[in-house]
Amino acid sequence: MTALAISFDDVKKAQERIAPAAHRTPVLTSTTADELTGAKLFFKCENFQRMGAFKFRGGYNSLAQLTPEQKKNGVVAFSSGNHAQAVALSAKILGMPAVIIMPQDAPAAKVAATRGYGAEVVTYDRYSEDREVISRKLAEERGLTLIPPYDHAHVMAGQGTAVLELIEDAGPMDLVLTPLGGGGLLSGCAVAAKALAPSCRVYGVEPEAGNDGQRSFRTGSIVKIDTPKTIADGAQTQFLGKLTFPIIQETVTDILTATDAELIQTMRFFAERMKMVVEPTGCLAAAAVFNKRVDIAGKRVGIVLSGGNMDIAQFGSFLSTGI
Amino acid sequence: MTALAISFDDVKKAQERIAPAAHRTPVLTSTTADELTGAKLFFKCENFQRMGAFKFRGGYNSLAQLTPEQKKNGVVAFSSGNHAQAVALSAKILGMPAVIIMPQDAPAAKVAATRGYGAEVVTYDRYSEDREVISRKLAEERGLTLIPPYDHAHVMAGQGTAVLELIEDAGPMDLVLTPLGGGGLLSGCAVAAKALAPSCRVYGVEPEAGNDGQRSFRTGSIVKIDTPKTIADGAQTQFLGKLTFPIIQETVTDILTATDAELIQTMRFFAERMKMVVEPTGCLAAAAVFNKRVDIAGKRVGIVLSGGNMDIAQFGSFLSTGI
Repeated sequence: MTALAISFDDVKKAQERIAPAAHRTPVLTSTTADELTGAKLFFKCENFQRMGAFKFRGGYNSLAQLTPEQKKNGVVAFSSGNHAQAVALSAKILGMPAVIIMPQDAPAAKVAATRGYGAEVVTYDRYSEDREVISRKLAEERGLTLIPPYDHAHVMAGQGTAVLELIEDAGPMDLVLTPLGGGGLLSGCAVAAKALAPSCRVYGVEPEAGNDGQRSFRTGSIVKIDTPKTIADGAQTQFLGKLTFPIIQETVTDILTATDAELIQTMRFFAERMKMVVEPTGCLAAAAVFNKRVDIAGKRVGIVLSGGNMDIAQFGSFLSTGI
Repeated sequence: MTALAISFDDVKKAQERIAPAAHRTPVLTSTTADELTGAKLFFKCENFQRMGAFKFRGGYNSLAQLTPEQKKNGVVAFSSGNHAQAVALSAKILGMPAVIIMPQDAPAAKVAATRGYGAEVVTYDRYSEDREVISRKLAEERGLTLIPPYDHAHVMAGQGTAVLELIEDAGPMDLVLTPLGGGGLLSGCAVAAKALAPSCRVYGVEPEAGNDGQRSFRTGSIVKIDTPKTIADGAQTQFLGKLTFPIIQETVTDILTATDAELIQTMRFFAERMKMVVEPTGCLAAAAVFNKRVDIAGKRVGIVLSGGNMDIAQFGSFLSTGI
């Protein structure tokens, strides 16, 4: 058996490293949510994190550990989502160049936001070009360090600080649930939760349309799927990571799923009752709880709301028309 | 000169009184907002308060001070907005009956929400009946205690805890701004701000369409207007209170205004950049800051976001279509 990629000590060190730059996001509660579920729910609000998502934790934790030489040359990441903005903003704060590889047809708002953080955006044709090949070529040519979105020890340790803070601020939990894409958030948070309370049960929640994580967990080997069709765009990953999967196998109780309709319902609940914008991916863990995918009666339940970034007109349309 | 209705000591005592029931709401910051304004802004998020608005503070502080006899008989309030829900929820928590007087044509959702808190809802025809007369009659018949929405020392002291907490949590402020309707929030918060930092400048912000407060403040006597047409339904008051006005005259620097268009713009900013639902009235103070109604360059500015309750389909429509 090989050693796991990160330990609780890595998460604690990540916490010290990101403290000067990251927001210590609030843990909110809702009497209505508690009454609906018969449990005591604690929502860790990463939608209020810098750049609007937990991804800042892992991005900053990675960039802060680069050597002076690496910092001088800069970093590269491929993403059209929250990872892109996390790397771009972290690079800006730490004063290093960043190149973000995005598809030519990425939403103009996302390209503008990434450029707004000072990053160079390089586009590619996703039907004829391979972004990983482009990234590696750029990395070699310019001496850039590639920052992967989830399968990297520094990224995973950074993400784990979300649940470390949750438990520090709100006390021990019987269950912890996080959204699941490639497993960076889930693996980091599971390590933190189990270290702080070995009896805590940890769950990952992914879109029903893309349940590769559930199948991988239950069969014991990584299942690869086609890009799933779901509004949870942050969890459209096709497979778990080589580093995240062993930790998930070791520490997680089960992987659950939620449908797009449940995500929209949950988004409305957060807007209407808790006055928050939570993106579809960010609603995954809460949707599983609200739809009783796991028994939580009488329990203390920590729920990570992973982010709040989405097209705001689309969000408004979900609220006003339900589609 | 008569003594002012409340002192800082009243606010501090209110804080102890409401602590077991109220949320200590977070103070959020935004790098984007700071860059846009050239100042350091601290948002006190009363949209995350219980029942979704600061009104819970004053309501609970009032009900908690009733005599055992008064508690047994219960309370009455007239409101179709946040004050109704604040009184209903406070009464539920404190185990006393509550009657809320609402117009027959109040939105069904608001009636249901108020009943959901266990209150009895009595409706009246607002074209042929006077709600104050009905309230007083009911109060006499049943021995109910009338809880006014703003012009009451216990209500004002309760509302002041919002800025007391803001300064305790985020440090001293150069300026503090709050929305202004009848003056309960502004007067309580001004007392807290001036006690904690005498040099702090305090501003109230009301809808441009209903600037009775500004006119009253600048002329030195209470101006009464017709119910103004504005989306800021929590600030459609027609005049300042007999108790709130003297405190506002004594402690406030000026009264500013914001237009409905500015409120919608501000609502979008909070949803898009800070991932929060803030109701139009709750956006007043921030809208004045974003639209440069006061010089804040380089200053530390406390801004009270007073609530987040609104029809969520209407909110969605503001975001998706701008109207």
